[in-house]
Amino acid sequence: MRSGAKTMLATLLITDDDSVVGSDDLGLAEPAFRRFGAPVGSLVTVTQAKSPDSLDAVRAKIVGRTLRDDEIAAIINDIAHFRYSDMEIAAFLVGSASFMSTGEMLALTRSMAQAGTRLTWDRPIVVDKHSIGGIPGNRTSMIVVPIVAAHGLMIPKTSSRAITSPAGTADTMEVLARVDIGIEEMRDIVTACNGCLIWGGRVNLSPADDILISVERPLGIDTREQMVASIMSKKMAAGSNHLLVDIPAGPAAKVRSDMEAMRLRKLFEFVGDQLGITVEVVVTDGRQPIGNGIGPVLEARDVMAVLHNEPDAPKDLREKSLQLAARLLECDPQIRGGGGYARARELLENGAALSKMQRIIDTQGPSNLSAELGGLTTDVVAEKDGTLEGIDCLRLNRLARMAGAPVDKGAGITVFKKIGDRVEAGEPLYRIYACESSEFELVSAAAKANSGFAIDGDVAVSREAQ
Amino acid sequence: MRSGAKTMLATLLITDDDSVVGSDDLGLAEPAFRRFGAPVGSLVTVTQAKSPDSLDAVRAKIVGRTLRDDEIAAIINDIAHFRYSDMEIAAFLVGSASFMSTGEMLALTRSMAQAGTRLTWDRPIVVDKHSIGGIPGNRTSMIVVPIVAAHGLMIPKTSSRAITSPAGTADTMEVLARVDIGIEEMRDIVTACNGCLIWGGRVNLSPADDILISVERPLGIDTREQMVASIMSKKMAAGSNHLLVDIPAGPAAKVRSDMEAMRLRKLFEFVGDQLGITVEVVVTDGRQPIGNGIGPVLEARDVMAVLHNEPDAPKDLREKSLQLAARLLECDPQIRGGGGYARARELLENGAALSKMQRIIDTQGPSNLSAELGGLTTDVVAEKDGTLEGIDCLRLNRLARMAGAPVDKGAGITVFKKIGDRVEAGEPLYRIYACESSEFELVSAAAKANSGFAIDGDVAVSREAQ
Repeated sequence: MRSGAKTMLATLLITDDDSVVGSDDLGLAEPAFRRFGAPVGSLVTVTQAKSPDSLDAVRAKIVGRTLRDDEIAAIINDIAHFRYSDMEIAAFLVGSASFMSTGEMLALTRSMAQAGTRLTWDRPIVVDKHSIGGIPGNRTSMIVVPIVAAHGLMIPKTSSRAITSPAGTADTMEVLARVDIGIEEMRDIVTACNGCLIWGGRVNLSPADDILISVERPLGIDTREQMVASIMSKKMAAGSNHLLVDIPAGPAAKVRSDMEAMRLRKLFEFVGDQLGITVEVVVTDGRQPIGNGIGPVLEARDVMAVLHNEPDAPKDLREKSLQLAARLLECDPQIRGGGGYARARELLENGAALSKMQRIIDTQGPSNLSAELGGLTTDVVAEKDGTLEGIDCLRLNRLARMAGAPVDKGAGITVFKKIGDRVEAGEPLYRIYACESSEFELVSAAAKANSGFAIDGDVAVSREAQ
Repeated sequence: MRSGAKTMLATLLITDDDSVVGSDDLGLAEPAFRRFGAPVGSLVTVTQAKSPDSLDAVRAKIVGRTLRDDEIAAIINDIAHFRYSDMEIAAFLVGSASFMSTGEMLALTRSMAQAGTRLTWDRPIVVDKHSIGGIPGNRTSMIVVPIVAAHGLMIPKTSSRAITSPAGTADTMEVLARVDIGIEEMRDIVTACNGCLIWGGRVNLSPADDILISVERPLGIDTREQMVASIMSKKMAAGSNHLLVDIPAGPAAKVRSDMEAMRLRKLFEFVGDQLGITVEVVVTDGRQPIGNGIGPVLEARDVMAVLHNEPDAPKDLREKSLQLAARLLECDPQIRGGGGYARARELLENGAALSKMQRIIDTQGPSNLSAELGGLTTDVVAEKDGTLEGIDCLRLNRLARMAGAPVDKGAGITVFKKIGDRVEAGEPLYRIYACESSEFELVSAAAKANSGFAIDGDVAVSREAQ
């Protein structure tokens, strides 16, 4: 469909019901209507959709040819302009999944970054961080950003919402502040605060990536090359020139071994070097949740406990956040080599990070969501005495989702024990919170069947499909 | 959605318009409504769609693993039961396109044949034929089936409709008789006539294949393995045990070289041997149209002219049909080796084939479509004297579609010259027929820009995307 200079790929649905559209009218779904931005009664031109020319390159890729930069750019440009159907996107992703050269990956990253809005900042140093997902809790960004911004470095952080996990950083931040923010407002917030913690879905940074992800996720396609291109294109479009990547490695994490982590690190470094982004990669412990809470409200409470320096704030979340913040602070020429950690702790302990977080929350605007915890709770207890030997992160994520997270912000899990802790039979391992009784019953039964916690020789972490 | 024992994968569309569905109601599109077969007001159970388990095997295929027979069977079973979305089907097709072992291809063929209705006949010999598509005209089935059936061999032929071409056999036969026929009626027709010429879309033979094709076509994925599995699964489900495959080879045909045709032949033979189907493959001239007409009405006229033994009936269509029929007749132990051609010609010339065709038409039921030719015509003429050196079949197909075929049955092209013919400047090469003036103008201009006919050193056949 064409309206003025705008075109859109649409699927035709036919109705004989005059109350929906008149016989000479076309009705548009609301998102499509918004995308055109033309008033009711506008004349549109409709032609049969022609397959985009760049599909020839997709077919060439499927039969094994390595694509040129301009071919990849054409594919990404067509995808970003909604000219590919889901099945055509799937064809590109699967065709690329079996083999992608580093040159192709680089072209993919560049094309994706160039396909949407690109931010520029009048600062020599703009930093960013990214944690590979899959670890429950792990809300370090919400502590690292205020520390780094309090120091005076710029960190324009956008985050995703959960798709298969019980909470993304955007879902958790949303308990505290508005996150559904557009590009102009983002610019203002970062200028005012040195940083932000917003959802990436409205800012149109690397829009092709958002579209690719919408097909990758349901298909469960997850290649290293596509992951690196996705992350790096977003950071490039956001105008960052220093990036810290946190790769948690563990038996139920996205990255399973140090060997895998190393290969991923090399890819990040290669692409960073080519794009002029200084990339530093840290491989962290991905065997168990970071922090105690899993689910938006519980995670937000952990974050605020750390920023408030509360004595019972989760130590692992605090320590990991300080370590990551330390690396970023050392991008500042003013900080002596090795002095990042002390500075990060200073900013956390003297309340500067908390003030900065309050400032960011105030500037983004207050949340209109309830931060109440789910009222239905049950404790999952140890079945025997022993030492906690393993935690199945996939299982915990799944249980927290069954409990209602992230849709029910107050649903989730609080973990009481970590690997290496002694437990006694009958002692609580974690507490489940749910808002709805149907979900509560479901998750209670599921946790009873498989708690995800292994004590003294219990079955190892299961390889459950997520 | 579940209703009684039936389940269906549905996409949720949300409306706030109470005139479409009430706030506690679900509306179903008519095809979905029919598929459930439950009355208005029925209670249905709705749950979030779970990805089919067999998608794990698709992911394994994508990363390069060869699949086991049971994994392929599970994939095909899920596809046949509408449990895969288009993008999941695309993932399977593309993941298989880069490499498929002969073992996988065999498992694919078997699974597809077993996923739908399977016919059995109380005859020791059941024959069938299949022509690889892409050649304009080439309606040999409509002559071969009556000859073979008149001889007394059983030939339960189902055909496809055009998707990217201007006519499939089902579209052309529909000018003469009903073709939209279900499985029970097909059984009766074949029992009464020894043969049929119906559309394959209603009989549920290899339904997974129909679904795979609906994704392969728009993506333009067309691997040998998938083509062989598609054709052989349909023939296996139809209960045939002798199959003649016609592979036209030519510069604008699906198969471009004798080498390619040979590789395809080996695949057909291998799968046939494994499935207990005697396969014979003939490689035929695919450089130009077979017969004069392109488009349903024009092709039906060619066919009837041959069956009526009219002196101006197209000789190439007659000869090719006799050659193919001869091969099939020799499946009959009663026919002496080498005697098939004489018998085929006898049945054509003595009117037995025509009578059989009339019988098939009467049994399938008369067509309710007009067999009138389009009233708007124009002749495309030679621009110079010379010898006709090449015909671009892709271009002719495209022009005939522009003229309105197959939707307008009477639209199409009549070819006056074939390769090797002398032509003089101004002499008509072919005539275009259209029913609508907008299409007539479009196709006239397009034919003028590129007629698809090459005379004495004109540019060779173009590699236009179909």
